[in-house]
Amino acid sequence: MKNIFSDLPLDLKNEQFAELLRAKNIRIERIVSKGHTSPKTGWYDQEENEWVLVLQGAGTILFAENNQRVTLQQGDFFHIPAHAKHKVVWTDPEEFTVWLAMYYSVEDFSASE
Amino acid sequence: MKNIFSDLPLDLKNEQFAELLRAKNIRIERIVSKGHTSPKTGWYDQEENEWVLVLQGAGTILFAENNQRVTLQQGDFFHIPAHAKHKVVWTDPEEFTVWLAMYYSVEDFSASE
Repeated sequence: MKNIFSDLPLDLKNEQFAELLRAKNIRIERIVSKGHTSPKTGWYDQEENEWVLVLQGAGTILFAENNQRVTLQQGDFFHIPAHAKHKVVWTDPEEFTVWLAMYYSVEDFSASE
Repeated sequence: MKNIFSDLPLDLKNEQFAELLRAKNIRIERIVSKGHTSPKTGWYDQEENEWVLVLQGAGTILFAENNQRVTLQQGDFFHIPAHAKHKVVWTDPEEFTVWLAMYYSVEDFSASE
């Protein structure tokens, strides 16, 4: 895969994860969803910070703190600090949602929003 | 800016750089070009590795080693190791080219292509 939109799966029973870059303390992944959500119970509680950009489609993230819902459309990006408990509660069922996620395990950051 | 395509400049005399994230050894930038190229003389010789993705538009990067030319269209991504001398020799003059660049100063990496 050299194009981020290539090799979209024909049949997508589960979300598809592809690692695009790995270095010390850094990972870039492409995630492809189509109507998928996080498991119904529990939260993601990540050791790493995550910077995420929706390249195509749309998805909604729910945060445990304050029940905050964030819906990301094409081009929207968001920063999820480590241990901010969250889950994906909706992704577009009609088309592929392509997420670019950059995970990094660095404590101090400054994120534009 | 919360959408990567927002605030595109009306008038673009120079390439526009916006920092979206900064952490230790990591930076994410949006770069907007429209017909811009690197200065005619000299090469970029970066201390950091760069992972770059074209979100819109197109651009051509020339590498000093072997005179390799890489044209990136929408969705194409590429890894530029630190000190790989390069320059941008063409960007689409008709529309904005929006680059997402992630710079990181880590020596060991594994990049998918």
